[in-house]
Amino acid sequence: VEAVAWTNEEGARFAPAMIASGVFAGVFSEEYGLSRADSDGKTIAEELDRIGYKGGLPCGGRSFRALFEAHIEQGPVLEAENKTIGAVSGIQGIRWFECTVSGSESHAGTTPMPARHDALVGAARIVDGIHTLAMSHAPDAVATVGRLLVYPGSTNVVPGSVFFSVDLRHPDDGVLKEMASELEAILNGITAGLKLSHDLHEIWYSEPVPFDPSCIASIRQAAEEGGYAYRDIVSGAGHDAGNIAKIAPTGMIFVPCAGGISHNEAESATPEDLAAGCNVLLRAVLAHASL
Amino acid sequence: VEAVAWTNEEGARFAPAMIASGVFAGVFSEEYGLSRADSDGKTIAEELDRIGYKGGLPCGGRSFRALFEAHIEQGPVLEAENKTIGAVSGIQGIRWFECTVSGSESHAGTTPMPARHDALVGAARIVDGIHTLAMSHAPDAVATVGRLLVYPGSTNVVPGSVFFSVDLRHPDDGVLKEMASELEAILNGITAGLKLSHDLHEIWYSEPVPFDPSCIASIRQAAEEGGYAYRDIVSGAGHDAGNIAKIAPTGMIFVPCAGGISHNEAESATPEDLAAGCNVLLRAVLAHASL
Repeated sequence: VEAVAWTNEEGARFAPAMIASGVFAGVFSEEYGLSRADSDGKTIAEELDRIGYKGGLPCGGRSFRALFEAHIEQGPVLEAENKTIGAVSGIQGIRWFECTVSGSESHAGTTPMPARHDALVGAARIVDGIHTLAMSHAPDAVATVGRLLVYPGSTNVVPGSVFFSVDLRHPDDGVLKEMASELEAILNGITAGLKLSHDLHEIWYSEPVPFDPSCIASIRQAAEEGGYAYRDIVSGAGHDAGNIAKIAPTGMIFVPCAGGISHNEAESATPEDLAAGCNVLLRAVLAHASL
Repeated sequence: VEAVAWTNEEGARFAPAMIASGVFAGVFSEEYGLSRADSDGKTIAEELDRIGYKGGLPCGGRSFRALFEAHIEQGPVLEAENKTIGAVSGIQGIRWFECTVSGSESHAGTTPMPARHDALVGAARIVDGIHTLAMSHAPDAVATVGRLLVYPGSTNVVPGSVFFSVDLRHPDDGVLKEMASELEAILNGITAGLKLSHDLHEIWYSEPVPFDPSCIASIRQAAEEGGYAYRDIVSGAGHDAGNIAKIAPTGMIFVPCAGGISHNEAESATPEDLAAGCNVLLRAVLAHASL
């Protein structure tokens, strides 16, 4: 049994995130990984040397039976359902889009309603349509418009254009593709109806990662044996386990966090839940080793 | 017959707009009007002195039979309907509101749809509701959300709060009041349904100004006699005539402008339409004088 703490999981100082597990799994070259620099221009290679953490072993190219990773959920599901353990079935896929809806600027006092081409009314209906899109693929789909900018942005001017982001996620790549098609259909339908135009670009695609069925089964069995309330769950965020899943059987164990809050000073998990997570991690490793 | 060009109609250099007609009509004191300063601190009194335009006659306090003002429409209605003359029935009332809708920020990847309190989904439905509100009071109502700011404004964060402006206008004060009540009902209904909260403030109210029926009749008659296609129309913007209407019978004549565009270098009206407007102004003054 080996324990690993992957370098630069978060990507807070060196972008992108999950570099070490990426190099280990062949997602990135070692040269690329070591040459990533922070905002002062210092590279990972230099900084590992400086703190004495560079080490002598090669990164990757080793065979092993399976990897199990433990993590807080970073979401509200386990806490809300009073479950101590989440057996993670996979990491959902992500598609990011940027969209601009265009109409024409006009005077809010002198332009009758039927003569308007109000880009914000169009964008508003699209935001609601994206919400409905996600709800229609319940329970696993999520969709978010997190950024939205209105031009020219004056109280007495009918908006001429609106820019917004779209974040679509689903654990099943087929459904995620379908959601992207539905997004286009929503945009086409709403902008045509209001005589607006639009421009949609996909700017990022991260494919879903399903975890290994035998690893998931070992986690379920470990939770069962430990007497912990558990459920299957999808990871909404990326993890090192997502890289390792490309080269070896991989599984993840979630425990609850207070209010689903993460990446925030208020992030919190109880000692009891963390102990349960560690126990399940141990039992899952042992159960999987005896398969 | 007297002709008047009111000082500071636009308010571009000295705020507020329409100061001279306001002083003439008793809306502002003369001291207030003369003491308005530009962004360099120069007052209207100083600048009128400097350019020799201060004059010796008192501002206001004179009796007269009626005032007629000619203007481009600043909107698209006359052009779209191929009318040369608009007999302005009045200046619409305006209510401005500022609203904040609040939910809670959360992770776009890990927060299931039913667990979200997405302030932008709420604001989007409200924007659409405000559009419907105006359409339900056709043809004279207009309603606009021109500014909208999303916090925190990140692609992968469910919006925690949204600020937006609301501009409601109608020529009838009773209807305008009703529209304001409906706005509150829309906000209450939508935010309650999504478990969001909201905060609505009225920040400006400008009451509607109906023009004098005998002045409107004289303008209609003048257009008729001149053989010009005409229609009654409401002014979406404020005008000096709106101040003068408080102290004397007042009317306004509109002519078309290209594409309804105003306050823009592209503002344009044809010589023929301007001549028609002048002819109607003359005929209306003569017709009203003989009442």
